[in-house]
Amino acid sequence: MGGLVEKQCRNALKALTKGDLTLAEKVATSDYKVNDLEVSINAKCTDLLALRQPAASDLRMIVGVIRMAADLERIGDEAEKIGRLAETIASGRDSVQFREDPKHLGKSAIDLLQGALDAFARLDVEAAIVAAAKDPDIDREFDSITRLSITHMMEQPASVKTLLRINWCARAFERIGDHAVNLCEEVVFLVKGSDVRHLSIKEIQDRYL
Amino acid sequence: MGGLVEKQCRNALKALTKGDLTLAEKVATSDYKVNDLEVSINAKCTDLLALRQPAASDLRMIVGVIRMAADLERIGDEAEKIGRLAETIASGRDSVQFREDPKHLGKSAIDLLQGALDAFARLDVEAAIVAAAKDPDIDREFDSITRLSITHMMEQPASVKTLLRINWCARAFERIGDHAVNLCEEVVFLVKGSDVRHLSIKEIQDRYL
Repeated sequence: MGGLVEKQCRNALKALTKGDLTLAEKVATSDYKVNDLEVSINAKCTDLLALRQPAASDLRMIVGVIRMAADLERIGDEAEKIGRLAETIASGRDSVQFREDPKHLGKSAIDLLQGALDAFARLDVEAAIVAAAKDPDIDREFDSITRLSITHMMEQPASVKTLLRINWCARAFERIGDHAVNLCEEVVFLVKGSDVRHLSIKEIQDRYL
Repeated sequence: MGGLVEKQCRNALKALTKGDLTLAEKVATSDYKVNDLEVSINAKCTDLLALRQPAASDLRMIVGVIRMAADLERIGDEAEKIGRLAETIASGRDSVQFREDPKHLGKSAIDLLQGALDAFARLDVEAAIVAAAKDPDIDREFDSITRLSITHMMEQPASVKTLLRINWCARAFERIGDHAVNLCEEVVFLVKGSDVRHLSIKEIQDRYL
């Protein structure tokens, strides 16, 4: 499920920045695969809880996986949203001028997602924290893209629609970063057994690095 | 937790539409209470799974509650976001002209949330489906508010910042509606035992009403 979601995000970014209509349409219509995986992962986890009555770290793994599947599903939703917006943006007159604006932001969010998935695969708390620590940069980059698009909107009112759509894509990537941080926090929960979801990155670093 | 989150949403809407700075600040700084409740609900559920090894409908209730707490926490995040935006909007020159735009949308989203929480309290599948069925109207209203703000942005480029912030508030209410639909779907899961999260409202109605 993680691999598929990561692929969806990469395709969404490519479709947006290259103005690739076919790829955008593919991303916008493939989300059902992610949804199906979430449903089947949830069913398997509930069965395991009922039949095997796991304890301690096995129990944490199952509870953690249920929550991670929900976050991955939401990342899939954001990728689908970017795919739909990319379809509309690609067909706009002024798309070429702005569509690469969220390129670096998108790449950073996908790197964070990849880091979170790798950390989970190796149950590596340190790697999870290193990945999560990149999120504030993503937030700052989103803010600066937004400031830039406000300037563009004021200067070129005719491009407001396109700029707004591109800003929604940027926001979707920013949210993908947030959900990827949740995945990192689940890795800490799985390994260390403590819920760090509402601590700051700094507090988590101080505690576990 | 549901009551607190609903209260945060009501205060967020009031702070935005009345331009009430004190209330906006209160909403923007009270989200930690919601976060703390999510952490303690999760800890209690994990303990129950470990110590009582529940089966069948008890197990579904616990798994469902873990997921509902995550949705409520996200609704709390959206309310906090609206609170922060309302602070900035209230201090803007052109706020009075536009700040009531999302009033009806916000009210509809909060009604849906209230319906979802009531349906959960009474484990009432029919009420959950009736509440969830209101979401498409909320989505349509968000689209029409967005179209209107695009027109305003093109006509009054100097108000772009305020309009963008108000549109983000509208989007946050639209997302509150989406999360409330997830709560409704959990009620169906708890009572009927089947995962309806990726079915359409129409399919759920056909199956259970």
